Formats: sequence, C-alpha cells, structure tokens
Amino acid sequence: MDYRQLSLKKHEEWKGKIETFCRVPVDSRESLSLAYTPGVAEPCMAIHADIEKSFELTRRWNTVPVITDGTAVLGLGDIGPEAGMPVMEGKCALFKAYGGVDAYPLCIKSKDTEEIIRTIKLLSGSFGGINLEDISAPRCFEIETRLKKELDIPVFHDDQHGTAIVMTAALINALKLAGKNKEDIKLVINGAGAAGIAIAKFLIDFGVKDVTLCDKNGIISAGESWLNPAQAEAAQITNKRHMTGKLADAVKGADVLIGVSGPHCVTKEMVRSMAQKPVLFTCANPVPEIDPEDAKEAGAFIVGTGSSQNPNQINNVLVFPGLFRGALDVRASTVNREMMFAAAYGIADCVTEKQLSVEYILPYAYDKSAHECVAKAVADAAVKTGVAKLKS
Amino acid sequence: MDYRQLSLKKHEEWKGKIETFCRVPVDSRESLSLAYTPGVAEPCMAIHADIEKSFELTRRWNTVPVITDGTAVLGLGDIGPEAGMPVMEGKCALFKAYGGVDAYPLCIKSKDTEEIIRTIKLLSGSFGGINLEDISAPRCFEIETRLKKELDIPVFHDDQHGTAIVMTAALINALKLAGKNKEDIKLVINGAGAAGIAIAKFLIDFGVKDVTLCDKNGIISAGESWLNPAQAEAAQITNKRHMTGKLADAVKGADVLIGVSGPHCVTKEMVRSMAQKPVLFTCANPVPEIDPEDAKEAGAFIVGTGSSQNPNQINNVLVFPGLFRGALDVRASTVNREMMFAAAYGIADCVTEKQLSVEYILPYAYDKSAHECVAKAVADAAVKTGVAKLKS
Repeated sequence: MDYRQLSLKKHEEWKGKIETFCRVPVDSRESLSLAYTPGVAEPCMAIHADIEKSFELTRRWNTVPVITDGTAVLGLGDIGPEAGMPVMEGKCALFKAYGGVDAYPLCIKSKDTEEIIRTIKLLSGSFGGINLEDISAPRCFEIETRLKKELDIPVFHDDQHGTAIVMTAALINALKLAGKNKEDIKLVINGAGAAGIAIAKFLIDFGVKDVTLCDKNGIISAGESWLNPAQAEAAQITNKRHMTGKLADAVKGADVLIGVSGPHCVTKEMVRSMAQKPVLFTCANPVPEIDPEDAKEAGAFIVGTGSSQNPNQINNVLVFPGLFRGALDVRASTVNREMMFAAAYGIADCVTEKQLSVEYILPYAYDKSAHECVAKAVADAAVKTGVAKLKS
Repeated sequence: MDYRQLSLKKHEEWKGKIETFCRVPVDSRESLSLAYTPGVAEPCMAIHADIEKSFELTRRWNTVPVITDGTAVLGLGDIGPEAGMPVMEGKCALFKAYGGVDAYPLCIKSKDTEEIIRTIKLLSGSFGGINLEDISAPRCFEIETRLKKELDIPVFHDDQHGTAIVMTAALINALKLAGKNKEDIKLVINGAGAAGIAIAKFLIDFGVKDVTLCDKNGIISAGESWLNPAQAEAAQITNKRHMTGKLADAVKGADVLIGVSGPHCVTKEMVRSMAQKPVLFTCANPVPEIDPEDAKEAGAFIVGTGSSQNPNQINNVLVFPGLFRGALDVRASTVNREMMFAAAYGIADCVTEKQLSVEYILPYAYDKSAHECVAKAVADAAVKTGVAKLKS
C-alpha cells in the first residue's frame, strides 16, 4: 500500500485529526456553578466592561482558526470547502503539536471576496489571530490586506508568507553551502499565484536583486496582456533584465529556481541550463515540479521539495506554529515584515554550521526546538517594533 | 469569597475552559506524510468526489459550534459577542464532558438576522450540527427556522428547545409527585421571549391544555397592542380563558409557574395565591424570579431553579449534550419534535420511582448515565421518524 492509500486508510481510522477537550472540572454541583451557571456571569460581565479581558478569561489568547474557501488546496486547486478540511485539520493538529496553539478548522462556502472578509470579521471576536489558508489568488491578496487593516489581531495568509519565510530560510542556508551572495544571484520563481508573488516581494525586501517570476503563460514581464492585477504589480519590481519567453528561457544561467506551481513542469534540460551549483526548491504539492532524483541527475546542487518524503522539506509547517505562538505570547496586534524576517532567520539559525549539508539545509518540521526558536524570534521582533501588547 | 468572585478567579486561572488536541502522530517524516502532505491529498480528493465522506474522513461527524451574537446571555441581556464567550466555552466544555461532542465556541459580531443566517450557512460545511445560543427574541425564531429549512444537519436553538425539553421533563416528574394530570393543570409561564414561547408551544403539543404566557407588560392576550409578532402568534394558542392583567392575576389558582424571565419578579404573595401543591420552576439566571427559600416559606410544593446551587436544577445542560450525541450518532438531518419529546421522557425516566422526591425531580446534570439515556432516546426517535442517515 503506497502512502496515499495508507493516508486514506489512516484518515478513515482517525475520524478526525483534532479533538476538543474540557479543561475544567464539571463533575459536581459546586464545579458546575463555577464553570457554568451561575458563576460564569462574573467573567462575562468582566469582559463586558473591558473586551481586552476576553484574552484573559477565555481561551481567546490561544485560539486561531485555519480558514479556507477550498479554492487552492495544496496543488489540487478548487476542490471545494469541505474537501479542503483534511488539510485544515492537519494544520490544526500541527499548530497544537508544534506551537501549542488551539486551532480550529473552518471552511467558508463562498468564493466572494467581500463575503469572505465580512464572515471572518464577524467571527474575529472569538479568536486571538486568523490564519488564512488555501484561498486562490488574486482574491487572497485583497482578503488578507483588508483583514490586516480592519482587525487588531494577527492575520496571516500562510500560503503567501509562510511559504515566503521558509523559502527565505532555505535560501539563506543554501547560499552558505553554494558560497554565493544573495545580492549576486539570479533567482527564478515558477508559479505567479499567491505564494510565488509573495515570495518574490519578500526576497526582494530581503536583498535578492535579480528575481524573475514565471507563470504557465511564461515570464511575468511588464506589459504582457495576460497578467492579472497582482502579477502586473509584481512585474514592476521583478524581471529587471526585461526577459520575455517561457520558463526555459528564464532559468538559463539562473542560480536558484523556486517552484510553487504544479507537477512536472521543470525538465532535466532546464536544470542543465542553470548556473553552476544550481539550487532547486520545487515545492508543488503533492507532486513536485521535477522529481528530486531527476533534478540531482541533471546536476542540481541542492534540491528541496514541499514533501516530507524527501530530504530538505521546505514546508511552511516550520513557520506557522512558531510564528503564531510568538505573536500570541506577546498579544501582537499584527504580523509585520520584521516579525517575518525574524522567523526566517530563526529557522535558518536552527541548523548549525556542523549540521549544514546539501541534504540538510532546514531543521526537520517535527523538531520542536525549531518552533520554539521561531516563536522567540517573532515575539522579540513584535516587541521591538511596538506591536506587542504584552512583553515577551 | 462567594461563588461569583471564585468563578472569576477560576476563569483567570483556567485561561479557557476548552482546548484543542492533536489526535494523530506528527513526530516523524513518515507520520507527517500521512497526516499532512503529501498523503492528505487522498482524503481531500475522496471528499471532493463525495461530500458525505467529510463525515468519515474529518472530525465533522462530531463537531458542533456553539454560536451566539451575545444579545441574550444568561439573564444578563445584550452584553456583546465577546462577553458571551465564557458561557459558550462553558457549554463546549459540557458538550464534551457529558456528550463526547467536539464543540467550538463562536461569537458573531452582528445583530442582523440575515447576516447571522448567512454567516452560519457559510460555515456549515465545517460542522456536523449547529447549536444556537443566547440570541435574543424574536430574531432567534427566524434564524433557527431558516437554518433548519436551508441546512441538512441538525440545528438547535438551545434557549428555546433545550429549556422546553428539560422543563417538560421536570413537569412530568413534578406532576407525578403532586398527583395531578397534565391535561387538568393551569400553567403560567413568566417571560415571553425565546424560551417562554418555545416552552408554551412545546407543553401544548405535549398535552397541557391551559397555558398562559406573561411578559413584563402583563398577560399575553390576543389583541394587546404591545405584542411582538412571535407573542401575537403565541396568543392564538395560549390564554384560553382570555385573562388580562399582570402576572399576579395570571398565577391566581395556577398549579405550575414557570419563570424564564428575570430576578425577583415573583412574590411570596403570588405563591400563596396559587392552587394547592404549587410547583415553581423559577429559572432566571443567574438570579431566580424568587428566592427558593422564600418560595418554600410561601407554600411551594416543589421549587426548581436554573442554578446548580439549589435542589432541582432545571438546566438545559441535561439536554444538549445527549441530544446532539444522539443526533450525530445516527447522522440525523434535523432535530424534530419527536426527538425532543424522546429527550424529555429520557430525562424524566432517569429518576426512578424510589429516587423521586420534591427535592429530586431531575437527574443531576453531572450524571453521565442521564446523558447516555437522552442520546439513546434521541437516536432511536431519529431513526423511527426517518431523519437518520445511519442506524442507531
């Protein structure tokens, strides 16, 4: 039985990957009168007098919904809200196991941007932060931007920023091994959806000067008729050499190829056309842009994928549990760029110089100390940038 | 320290009454590839092919949100969505402890009927059932009616029906002790909000012939100018003797007084004016309509309250965990009248003839066998009435 069939079988057995527990005694008249009526009126009135108390008297300080509309689930596309739930539940399980965060999976049966924004805003009083997940571009940009502006709790679209952060962490360590500087490299991103554009922006802020985005239509170049608004905006800051053509054209001489697209769109030929010591982060899920074995055969120096089945898993699992843990710990009102950079460096620094190798550029996702490291770095950055309501 | 102060202190210590747990191993590359990527794609696609599979491959079979808008929390009124959360969390804790149901507290920051309906519909794919809570009348009627019609999972407004069911269970056993028949009694309900009207309708369906509703304005009588639409509708089936006046007029000669209103609105004088062996279920929360000691002094035969601090707690805690357990177990598509009657009899029958006394008419809320009894009765009724997708 392969891992796909085994996963299905396990899901049938598990009947759910997360579960709610009761944390308080409710086994006597006395305990009921404290946890429930009539005693519960007192914390209710305390919050009524000061809404901030909801972070102290309920679980709000530690709760994050993992919200999707099911339109961009893994690399599977628009499979519908209910069908996205196994992924959302999986994220919630990881939120708890790695970050101690109480996460709830929620799917929204709408693809309307305004309706999704409104729904999340209406629910925001129940939560300490909001994790947006697997919402397709370009709607996800507007949804995140608006929610960040209109809410005073951390809002984070994991597919954009989680991916950008972990990719940056991987790049930091890959460049150490390749002996290259971020300012000098040519970097190509295939996939100009939510993740690809977010990675491009993030890496440019980080200091990579030559970034080129590609889509299934080809190189994202200012003036192309097929660009959507988010791609047109990205074209202004990428592709400095004004290349046109297809992915195969873009990757010629490139040092790094990041794939956040779909299966089998990168060929051995393309890898052979890259610069010396080429680095490939081919993260399409569940099937990568090129088989890691093929990439290695074609001369790839370092290969990372999104899957836990291969070495160098570049998965935002390394980001979101610690990032929210840190943000919640200091009751951050937002997730800003500084907190994201801190998370990237936090992850990269978890791999010691001695450990670092072409098959080990990132800590394992199940390494709890990595998540603690991220949490600490993010909390510190929140305090430093003045968005924390508590001290770390 | 009184129980209110102690409850506040406990809530500060608890920092949340429920918590999410991870049910699956995620501590190795192998386990991650089953619970998360890439294996998780398989259950996603299975649900994409058949949405019903969401009840088998995710926790949906066992999840119920406890949803409020914070407009009618306990007897505290419109205290706001965040301030209602300690009650919602408490319910979720009880859902798990007594019914094994994974419940999530959600507050909605809107008082708009259509917006609340829409929000819940958009989220309904995440859940196996919907528990509406502490939403003020008359909006709660429309919200529940519409959701019941438009969704194919159980929808239950606990303040209406949970209260009606447990009140009916209490009445069944109180009448046994008083030696009276339900067909012969005069019954008065003070409080013509969601709960009061639901109780009136339920008891009439149950066989009580003489039911009178009162509000703070007085007796609900057809033609009164101050009735809201729900009260006007209720006036058509209640107050058969066409009484007018205040509560004090209505209770003269009454056998049973049910209070779902506010504190201190029933006097000793009123109790003295009732029929012999008067039964009082004064359930205002957190402070009852009359102090149980005062009621007893004035001659009450049986007194029940909503509080766990007094004997005969008449609390819907006895209803909702078992009712949803039963409905979820057979994947009922709705909660119908027969399932509710089954729950009332299930609760009443938990008290044996030997146990039954004026101070013990209902099982204790923390008696797990009572909840199991309710679950079984409800599941059987769902199967019998053809609304169950699974067998009990």
